[in-house]
Amino acid sequence: MINEETKRDVLPRLKKIEGQIRGIQRMVEKEKYCIDIINQLTAAQRALDQVSLKVMQRHIESCVTDAIKSDGGGPIIGELMETIYKFIR
Amino acid sequence: MINEETKRDVLPRLKKIEGQIRGIQRMVEKEKYCIDIINQLTAAQRALDQVSLKVMQRHIESCVTDAIKSDGGGPIIGELMETIYKFIR
Amino acid sequence: MINEETKRDVLPRLKKIEGQIRGIQRMVEKEKYCIDIINQLTAAQRALDQVSLKVMQRHIESCVTDAIKSDGGGPIIGELMETIYKFIR
Amino acid sequence: MINEETKRDVLPRLKKIEGQIRGIQRMVEKEKYCIDIINQLTAAQRALDQVSLKVMQRHIESCVTDAIKSDGGGPIIGELMETIYKFIR
Repeated sequence: MINEETKRDVLPRLKKIEGQIRGIQRMVEKEKYCIDIINQLTAAQRALDQVSLKVMQRHIESCVTDAIKSDGGGPIIGELMETIYKFIR
Repeated sequence: MINEETKRDVLPRLKKIEGQIRGIQRMVEKEKYCIDIINQLTAAQRALDQVSLKVMQRHIESCVTDAIKSDGGGPIIGELMETIYKFIR
Repeated sequence: MINEETKRDVLPRLKKIEGQIRGIQRMVEKEKYCIDIINQLTAAQRALDQVSLKVMQRHIESCVTDAIKSDGGGPIIGELMETIYKFIR
Repeated sequence: MINEETKRDVLPRLKKIEGQIRGIQRMVEKEKYCIDIINQLTAAQRALDQVSLKVMQRHIESCVTDAIKSDGGGPIIGELMETIYKFIR
């Protein structure tokens, strides 16, 4: 489960990404150079990757670890693999 | 260059993605299930992919097309390939 | 650790991917249409994704599970996250 | 269209990737450490990315450029965008 440490790590990152998305909207409105817009979109994507990986690590360290310790790893590992599959697209 | 049609297509998408990012912040604050958070992050990433591809198509149809027609495709194609390379990571 | 079941699943996939790569070489030699070549390259990449996910699942079900059960999940989870990070690029 | 220069660039890369895939088969047969196998799979994927980008650049410099010069860029740019969409997954 999400804990205080993950919140402190992840929430400022999401706040910053929200600002990046607003910045990209302004770039589109002002008709900035397409390549610069795409590069900013790519930067936001890489920042989102980091958030996903932080939440995934926390999930493995908490829910997956607890399930494995009580011998019920199977379904939660299946769910994790499906999530990674969607995440990598 | 970004035109009115691209703006009308892309700006509502970015507005929606901004809302998704805010929704993910609330999920983290309320300590929602990690897998649900990651799936929402993945959905935002796929929506950003669409925006990048729309802007890239517009770029190819305008700037790249103009450069090729005036026989100066080389550098702008090089720049495009570099952008695609970063975009795919 | 890799077991017989994973071998039986993964080895025929890798054999098939090897054949795909050879097929792509022939397409390049015969100067086939670029888009068709790229689509075959993409198909090989998706097949490799599946192999990576199969091996990753087996790793989590064996080594990661064993480490967690003997209270040593930390380093192996760190190593896994680094591998996922590289895998998504 | 694929030309001699692209062949000289791309064929040795594909030959090397074929060797990497065979090497990964041996790693699976010998039950090597899962993380090492995944990292080799990731290396093969990055090498395939490079091949795709080389072929895509050649395609833009030849077929796309020719189509744009004869004022028929529309359909071929649409086809290219669809291919990039599949390529990024």
